[in-house]
Amino acid sequence: MSDQHPFDRAIALQASEEGFEGRTSPDYANFIGPYGGITAAQCLNAVLQHRERLGDPVAFTINYAAAVADGSFQVRPRPARTNRSTQHWIVEMLQGGEVVATATALTAVRRPTWGGHEAHMPQVPAAAEVPRTRRKGVAWLERYDMRFLLGMIPRDWDGGDAQESLSRLWVRDEPPRPLDFASLVALCDVFFPRIWLRRARQTPLGTVTMTVYFHASADELEDTGGGYLLAQARGQGFAGGYFDHAGQLWSEDGELLATTHQVMYYKE
Amino acid sequence: MSDQHPFDRAIALQASEEGFEGRTSPDYANFIGPYGGITAAQCLNAVLQHRERLGDPVAFTINYAAAVADGSFQVRPRPARTNRSTQHWIVEMLQGGEVVATATALTAVRRPTWGGHEAHMPQVPAAAEVPRTRRKGVAWLERYDMRFLLGMIPRDWDGGDAQESLSRLWVRDEPPRPLDFASLVALCDVFFPRIWLRRARQTPLGTVTMTVYFHASADELEDTGGGYLLAQARGQGFAGGYFDHAGQLWSEDGELLATTHQVMYYKE
Repeated sequence: MSDQHPFDRAIALQASEEGFEGRTSPDYANFIGPYGGITAAQCLNAVLQHRERLGDPVAFTINYAAAVADGSFQVRPRPARTNRSTQHWIVEMLQGGEVVATATALTAVRRPTWGGHEAHMPQVPAAAEVPRTRRKGVAWLERYDMRFLLGMIPRDWDGGDAQESLSRLWVRDEPPRPLDFASLVALCDVFFPRIWLRRARQTPLGTVTMTVYFHASADELEDTGGGYLLAQARGQGFAGGYFDHAGQLWSEDGELLATTHQVMYYKE
Repeated sequence: MSDQHPFDRAIALQASEEGFEGRTSPDYANFIGPYGGITAAQCLNAVLQHRERLGDPVAFTINYAAAVADGSFQVRPRPARTNRSTQHWIVEMLQGGEVVATATALTAVRRPTWGGHEAHMPQVPAAAEVPRTRRKGVAWLERYDMRFLLGMIPRDWDGGDAQESLSRLWVRDEPPRPLDFASLVALCDVFFPRIWLRRARQTPLGTVTMTVYFHASADELEDTGGGYLLAQARGQGFAGGYFDHAGQLWSEDGELLATTHQVMYYKE
């Protein structure tokens, strides 16, 4: 048990009458409650662990409906529709009988087809050549080895107004862990809030919804081993208390693994 | 009744015991079943019409779980969580007791904040200067006035292999109709399948999931009137029978109204 990777401990679920039971993990604590990426991984893991599950994840959307409190939670995945090679899931995470997150997932048995990714990895120095970007403060930051190439959050919160919020970083689990769908979905939430790059001002905020599209098979994820992923995100619209970003994650050898989008709330 | 816009007739819902009843509309027929954008608009409209609804749409995800048959359907929206200024919805669309679509929506009371969109409208000729791109075949194409600037689907299905799939077009409802959240979500599905641009080969396909993020208020949408929107989409990953695209829609005067992403299944 003690040899388990912190990520595996964090997403562990016990089968219960109506689904699964889990507990938040201090290893992935954020300022308030858990890192959103780990909540996403817990919801996806409930689908992955379900005995009726057909195929592997193709698309996953999580909606953060309320702050997740430290402690136990219930996850209830339900196959809303099962076809010959695809399956549509509705997931609810609850605490104290109240919904704290909703999610939908599409799993599918994928078949070899013509392919050819269009979102190419930008040319960047290799991960080994880029120093680790250290940032302390909350536990989940210790669970990722981040190496920023572009768009780290400001050192000085001087209220500056930047024109864009493109970030690029190498990132992997710390300690290294072979990549799978659950850890990839968690990695998709690794981006610091784009508004912090745009404004250099710590307005209160939080992710309200995140979508992940998977472009690789389980075998292809496993082949990346514990290597670094190149993660990129850029803000799109910022207005009326909500902004979104669009992101991509590639393996170290340039294969597109996931595309991801999210909306964050911000206060001012 | 006969004066109603075809779009309003298509998304009309009658309250029922467990939600709403609607009917597919021949005005928005696709090759098989209805245009996916109208199914999305029907699901969102069920949230908009719900008497407990709080605020306006911020994010919406629809999962197309099965082919929608011509005829009647039920839509069941449920507020999974209601907070002070935000509300999370789970929606199911059914036919014959089987789920044909699932959706989640976030509605919120938006407040004025700092803002500044980062996804800028590309410089393009005005809609009035671009001739209408006529394409016949299925009914829903008649419901949109499309004026392609870039990335129309091939005239010759010669199996050519293009490197990219960027499309830009001016588009509005036909006949013109003042923009609202329901019509905007339908417009987000207006893009022809990216794989047709990449390959010039008509492989069977269909959208399996679409997400829309809204960046404008109800008033701002209404202000665009029946004007053209600039719609842009580009493919990202294509492998194992599924590809995705990322898109943006701006008002004629360059205001970002929505960002959207979707995954399509393709056969070969």
